[in-house]
Amino acid sequence: MNNTRQETDSLGTIRVPRNVLWGAQTQRSLENFRIGDQRMPLEIVHALGQIKRAAARTNEAFGLLSQELSDAIVAAADRVAKGELDDHFPLVVWQTGSGTQSNMNANEVIANAANIALGGQAGAKSPVHPNDHVNLSQSSNDTFPTAIHLATVTVLTQRLIPALKALHAALASKAALWGDIVKIGRTHTQDATPITLGQEFSGYAAQVEAGISRVGLAMPGLRQLAQGGTAVGTGLNTPKGFAEKFVEELSRNTGLSFESAPNKFEALAAQDALIFAHGALNTLAASLYKISSDIRLLGSGPRAGLGELSLPANEPGSSIMPGKVNPTQCEAMTQVCAQVFGNHATITFAGSQGQFELNVYRPVVGYNFLQSVQLLADAADSFRVKLLDGLEPREGNIQRGLENSLMLVTALAPTLGYDRAAEIARTANERGQTLREAALASGFISAEEYDRVVQPDKMLGPT
Amino acid sequence: MNNTRQETDSLGTIRVPRNVLWGAQTQRSLENFRIGDQRMPLEIVHALGQIKRAAARTNEAFGLLSQELSDAIVAAADRVAKGELDDHFPLVVWQTGSGTQSNMNANEVIANAANIALGGQAGAKSPVHPNDHVNLSQSSNDTFPTAIHLATVTVLTQRLIPALKALHAALASKAALWGDIVKIGRTHTQDATPITLGQEFSGYAAQVEAGISRVGLAMPGLRQLAQGGTAVGTGLNTPKGFAEKFVEELSRNTGLSFESAPNKFEALAAQDALIFAHGALNTLAASLYKISSDIRLLGSGPRAGLGELSLPANEPGSSIMPGKVNPTQCEAMTQVCAQVFGNHATITFAGSQGQFELNVYRPVVGYNFLQSVQLLADAADSFRVKLLDGLEPREGNIQRGLENSLMLVTALAPTLGYDRAAEIARTANERGQTLREAALASGFISAEEYDRVVQPDKMLGPT
Amino acid sequence: MNNTRQETDSLGTIRVPRNVLWGAQTQRSLENFRIGDQRMPLEIVHALGQIKRAAARTNEAFGLLSQELSDAIVAAADRVAKGELDDHFPLVVWQTGSGTQSNMNANEVIANAANIALGGQAGAKSPVHPNDHVNLSQSSNDTFPTAIHLATVTVLTQRLIPALKALHAALASKAALWGDIVKIGRTHTQDATPITLGQEFSGYAAQVEAGISRVGLAMPGLRQLAQGGTAVGTGLNTPKGFAEKFVEELSRNTGLSFESAPNKFEALAAQDALIFAHGALNTLAASLYKISSDIRLLGSGPRAGLGELSLPANEPGSSIMPGKVNPTQCEAMTQVCAQVFGNHATITFAGSQGQFELNVYRPVVGYNFLQSVQLLADAADSFRVKLLDGLEPREGNIQRGLENSLMLVTALAPTLGYDRAAEIARTANERGQTLREAALASGFISAEEYDRVVQPDKMLGPT
Amino acid sequence: MNNTRQETDSLGTIRVPRNVLWGAQTQRSLENFRIGDQRMPLEIVHALGQIKRAAARTNEAFGLLSQELSDAIVAAADRVAKGELDDHFPLVVWQTGSGTQSNMNANEVIANAANIALGGQAGAKSPVHPNDHVNLSQSSNDTFPTAIHLATVTVLTQRLIPALKALHAALASKAALWGDIVKIGRTHTQDATPITLGQEFSGYAAQVEAGISRVGLAMPGLRQLAQGGTAVGTGLNTPKGFAEKFVEELSRNTGLSFESAPNKFEALAAQDALIFAHGALNTLAASLYKISSDIRLLGSGPRAGLGELSLPANEPGSSIMPGKVNPTQCEAMTQVCAQVFGNHATITFAGSQGQFELNVYRPVVGYNFLQSVQLLADAADSFRVKLLDGLEPREGNIQRGLENSLMLVTALAPTLGYDRAAEIARTANERGQTLREAALASGFISAEEYDRVVQPDKMLGPT
Repeated sequence: MNNTRQETDSLGTIRVPRNVLWGAQTQRSLENFRIGDQRMPLEIVHALGQIKRAAARTNEAFGLLSQELSDAIVAAADRVAKGELDDHFPLVVWQTGSGTQSNMNANEVIANAANIALGGQAGAKSPVHPNDHVNLSQSSNDTFPTAIHLATVTVLTQRLIPALKALHAALASKAALWGDIVKIGRTHTQDATPITLGQEFSGYAAQVEAGISRVGLAMPGLRQLAQGGTAVGTGLNTPKGFAEKFVEELSRNTGLSFESAPNKFEALAAQDALIFAHGALNTLAASLYKISSDIRLLGSGPRAGLGELSLPANEPGSSIMPGKVNPTQCEAMTQVCAQVFGNHATITFAGSQGQFELNVYRPVVGYNFLQSVQLLADAADSFRVKLLDGLEPREGNIQRGLENSLMLVTALAPTLGYDRAAEIARTANERGQTLREAALASGFISAEEYDRVVQPDKMLGPT
Repeated sequence: MNNTRQETDSLGTIRVPRNVLWGAQTQRSLENFRIGDQRMPLEIVHALGQIKRAAARTNEAFGLLSQELSDAIVAAADRVAKGELDDHFPLVVWQTGSGTQSNMNANEVIANAANIALGGQAGAKSPVHPNDHVNLSQSSNDTFPTAIHLATVTVLTQRLIPALKALHAALASKAALWGDIVKIGRTHTQDATPITLGQEFSGYAAQVEAGISRVGLAMPGLRQLAQGGTAVGTGLNTPKGFAEKFVEELSRNTGLSFESAPNKFEALAAQDALIFAHGALNTLAASLYKISSDIRLLGSGPRAGLGELSLPANEPGSSIMPGKVNPTQCEAMTQVCAQVFGNHATITFAGSQGQFELNVYRPVVGYNFLQSVQLLADAADSFRVKLLDGLEPREGNIQRGLENSLMLVTALAPTLGYDRAAEIARTANERGQTLREAALASGFISAEEYDRVVQPDKMLGPT
Repeated sequence: MNNTRQETDSLGTIRVPRNVLWGAQTQRSLENFRIGDQRMPLEIVHALGQIKRAAARTNEAFGLLSQELSDAIVAAADRVAKGELDDHFPLVVWQTGSGTQSNMNANEVIANAANIALGGQAGAKSPVHPNDHVNLSQSSNDTFPTAIHLATVTVLTQRLIPALKALHAALASKAALWGDIVKIGRTHTQDATPITLGQEFSGYAAQVEAGISRVGLAMPGLRQLAQGGTAVGTGLNTPKGFAEKFVEELSRNTGLSFESAPNKFEALAAQDALIFAHGALNTLAASLYKISSDIRLLGSGPRAGLGELSLPANEPGSSIMPGKVNPTQCEAMTQVCAQVFGNHATITFAGSQGQFELNVYRPVVGYNFLQSVQLLADAADSFRVKLLDGLEPREGNIQRGLENSLMLVTALAPTLGYDRAAEIARTANERGQTLREAALASGFISAEEYDRVVQPDKMLGPT
Repeated sequence: MNNTRQETDSLGTIRVPRNVLWGAQTQRSLENFRIGDQRMPLEIVHALGQIKRAAARTNEAFGLLSQELSDAIVAAADRVAKGELDDHFPLVVWQTGSGTQSNMNANEVIANAANIALGGQAGAKSPVHPNDHVNLSQSSNDTFPTAIHLATVTVLTQRLIPALKALHAALASKAALWGDIVKIGRTHTQDATPITLGQEFSGYAAQVEAGISRVGLAMPGLRQLAQGGTAVGTGLNTPKGFAEKFVEELSRNTGLSFESAPNKFEALAAQDALIFAHGALNTLAASLYKISSDIRLLGSGPRAGLGELSLPANEPGSSIMPGKVNPTQCEAMTQVCAQVFGNHATITFAGSQGQFELNVYRPVVGYNFLQSVQLLADAADSFRVKLLDGLEPREGNIQRGLENSLMLVTALAPTLGYDRAAEIARTANERGQTLREAALASGFISAEEYDRVVQPDKMLGPT
């Protein structure tokens, strides 16, 4: 008992550890939800700090909160926003679906921290009360969705977009650098007409560039905040203008741009903007999957694979096969993509299950969304630094593949027609001849004509 | 043998039914892929007609095709585009992943139809050759992706958006009509503070409105066409400017607006624009799921449910329980949404699996995407006409629910504080009292004050 | 009006086409659900025929139905079961979630067919009444789940298992045939220690064998039938013993073995047995995906790929590249697998959404499950006949890959230790030497010792 | 530099922190994969400890390892298995897809710990070498899959099955306890024929019971271990009989029963047994979703909901609505289910992506599988203790719902026929009458007859 103090809430009293800033409701949640060890993401905790701070100033502006209390709340909320009080947010994801307990966790920590700063003590709920002051003009039902939107806009802006831009730049620079390396193209995994290695990488760069732009398309929906809807979307117990003033305050504090959601009923009852935005991440994962799978296959070998790329040897590849080097960055990336696809399924499911005035699958959506962003951003960085930067073409192999190709026959089709060209290619394949041998043997074309028409480096674009 | 004729392709000869316009390659596909009975969607077939027509005119403009052959191809392609030759497109979805066989199906049908119109006969490949003329300056690898983009832009524009707009209008009109019907709000499925039925429906309307806008955000990516990339994205065997001239021609013919994809390597090797666009449909399905689930629950009863809405009795509901009426339109809609969620998983998976210069999961993506559009558009229409138009509030039940509510206590919190207000609500609940009874018994508030503060119709917005 | 007749149900009268056997409720459904064109799968229609027949005999045995009416119902139901009346089942999947309308479709068709056979006329509902006689002792709520279980057990038994057994036999015969062809193994797509082509195919065979066994594990759950639960699982309006007698009758008629579900409340309210059974199909799709992806990659080339397998040239592969042959059966198969993965997502979602005494996502689950079975069985057959049967090793390429391999170094590790062996492999790779050259140059091992230890055909198993 | 020591591997030297037991390869992985913060699950780390121990004893038995080294390895491995060295396993999930780096982490920690115990020092690799001794007769490619199978069998056996059995017992006891409480049944969310609350809960109990049995069906596949396949499945560098002796040793040590996988090529190249087993978890999640959704809806209210169940008030439900109590355990459970559905999508995707002799998506599959088990087991416990144990029927509300029901009309159908019964129900509904009033007014039935036939407590089973 010496190590605990008493806290109270509307259900009665409860003991909490003496040295923590959380209160009764947080403690109840800790005891009622012993499920997993996935903590509520810290990005959401920090966002709650930002929100409580902006709400306090907004309440003060409307005359609902004295400057003294407002200052105290702002100072404590600021510490939450900066991550100084992370240890006081012990709750897991698997709690009430509205995030009420994490909102109350923030209310309790801020109230206690403020009261201590004002010379009082934890648990007193006075002069700063967690509900009546810290949560003033708010409900979990508008605050928690706001926290998720704020957290996602923050990490998309500060982590993912920069990581993708750097990845795009790295791919684009390879595209430029390797613009003259002519290689065999492959469709259906089968030899096809020539392409440059630079052209191939320009396709990867284009995928990432479009991915950045898709995240951008999804951002405006995330910038719309539920705050001001309170319990059911009506805005009960807020002063008129609260929502608008709040987003101004928050935008100024965070340096990010937000607006008040045009329909608060939708903002509380649905999570559609998050489903759509995660659809952009889902698409991005498909893009990155393709890029890293290609590089893995192009780097296959070293002797009995396609062998067109040499990947950096970052670590021994095998515990039993000495000297083996594996495309491990590709493997980390493709596993991350697999995770993002699953996260998308979870978010879609959860987002569809709102009922009446509230969707109560908020923590699971926030957790999955933020995990996707973290993993994609980190993997993009790792892939760039540990793989792309050290990637090299194996020009000898590339040249050999090109020379042996039968699909250069395509250059003959406009002259000979599709059917005769096909016959030449088929014959060469069956007899193990080069294309030139088979073409000349066919009698359809002279050596001079063949050499004029079939030039890989003239087959790289329209004519 | 009397019922067949001989056709040839680069693999040799094959018998095809006498009375069909398809040729050797279509016939081979028919025999090689006896998998399922899901035909290549007709929207794609019609799009191929449009493409062949635009390509012929473009080839003509570049002097690659005589006006006579071009006219013949355009006339035949037009019949394909208009659906007059649907019976000559027998192939299933489960074929080569590039759609080559359906592209060749179009080439063969158009060549045969053109040759017949020119006085020749089916199978002659002359004067119009399926590859050398109908497919001129094209590859399946750019044509088939173009067909899917064209088909999806068409149905999104002509079917889905109009259906959603009509649905939005119906929901918005209910929101307006029922703006004065005050009812109990519900969060966590539990009684909460009041809301109007109109406000509730305004949330639904907002979801659909945002859904329309999200489809709009995804359209520009679909308007970018792969045509001109030919086999591997380089544009080999096209004249310079073909791609640009083609989209002009196609845009004019269809009245829809297209542009040439900025990177053809990406356009062939990925299907990212389709994954992203289907993400908008996936979000829409989540929205429609929520709306129809709510209406189902609000209409539950008739005696032992929530009973706030009366749904039209379109058909007997039970083969064993006489007189039963069920929310069948909600059930059809929610099943459609479940299908769309699964289609999204298929499209995401397939879209991630491109290799090198080509993604060979095009038919399965096209099939699922077009099915989603068809089902969502049809279900939106059905839901609107057969359910929303006949939906009525059950005002007696609504009024009773509101009167009994304990959550009107929220109006007392600003006056009494959260803790005392909670005590009143808990007492009322335990003793089966009305909120007013418990409030007065608590001694915290007078009858006059209570009646002044607790007025449901004053609890519908900020103050 | 001449082409229609009047039918009635509990909602009143309605006109139906004169020449059809369906009645009022089917007609209402047709008009109320203009959604998509996916018909209720015929396997379910036929199963309803079987059920109505068995129910009639069971009712007769309990003295609830005269022998005359029972005989008439059995004769008509038999025609439904045999597929003779398929044209009279026009309803789509997207209807009421209990399948009531398709159950009524069966009741109406059978009643009308029976009445006509007894000299009466369609629409008379007498002497055979669709509800009171054909549906006697039944509800859609137990009948429709029974129909889905019956349909799935039927196609799994008659279509999928045989197709998988044939596929397994084909793979196992390749494994035996190619048991002496030593080739390079690959892990992480990188060269690894040797393996025989037969061992590789034995892994594929093992996957399919396990797949068959997993379907077997899931069958007992599908053999449990909901019939006898009627409206809510209690069995109201059935005689005691109906459920048990019914499954006896049905088992005898179909030659398949069924039992009465031990808990009818579960059987109506959930679709868990279908989710679990489709989990076996989902796993099977993952297996087939791996097998066909491998064969696609091993067959890549013909000149610049791995080139270890030669796939049959079933059709021209490209509309622009003459002579190209593609792994189209692999592409059809992998697209089928992508579809099955999506179907699994739909079924899982739908299966989780039951409420109270009923799950109303039955048509969508039945549709997706039966589609998966059809596609997997057809694709397994096609893959076997059109690809595996004509598959050939390219032994020259295989031998070359083996000879060049550096990973034979693994055989040196037990002698030299991992670290020195790794040094040899790394040196060989950097200098472009053979492994033998680098090993001898290292001074760690003599030529005699090397040749004794490094023998690929001695590296194929434990020692 | 004082805080680090030098370690070496086949790529050279690297500094590692002085006080850790891991070595060069672990350190490289730490530096190369700065992706996310999801650690390799400890269940897998502990399993690696068990495996290294069993492998050492097996090697010793085959005379490959001296007893002294074997004892040293066993002692160190035991500490890993018991969790004493968890802090020395710092790697994340997002690493090489074979888990090689975590296998090497175990090899390094055990070698260092053993060497220190033998009087040597960390980094010496002598007398115990991480590869040559700890990893002897093993490859990551067989060891890591074995670790995942061992870990999953362990947690399924020790955590999930017991949690499900307890949950089943709790549900079954409610089913027994509430067997006499007759209530209205609901299908399509609409009033239907009566059922007892006990019958309803018996359906839930049956779902969980079947769930336990499905996990059981999936276990044999997980009990098959890849160990002995080494690098590519051939078992190169193992003595004959190693695999069999190893599973004996492991089975004895763990008290769980394992067998050697019949085909090691499949065991390395696929993860099918895990996909199938997670299909059982996926089905379980669907079951638990249904159960908790029902209880949430049956507990809706307290005044304007269905109100048939009273859920324990574990915590205040709202930060703004005083006195609100929410079904938070249902919300935690349904969020867990949503997560499991997504994990299933990830596992299915990853499991399908094996190439050649190896599937390199092992860490992501292990992570998701073990997370699902942890969450389902914890949530089952929490749901049982914090919700089911305190769940109470609200008998007054239940009785009222039953009395008002119109669907008791079903009892009249056998007497009056479906059509006349339907007319009575429809009339009662339209006029707001009780069913009895409408029945008597219809003239179809006398009061005596009505009261004899329509008795809810006689409508609970077959007659």
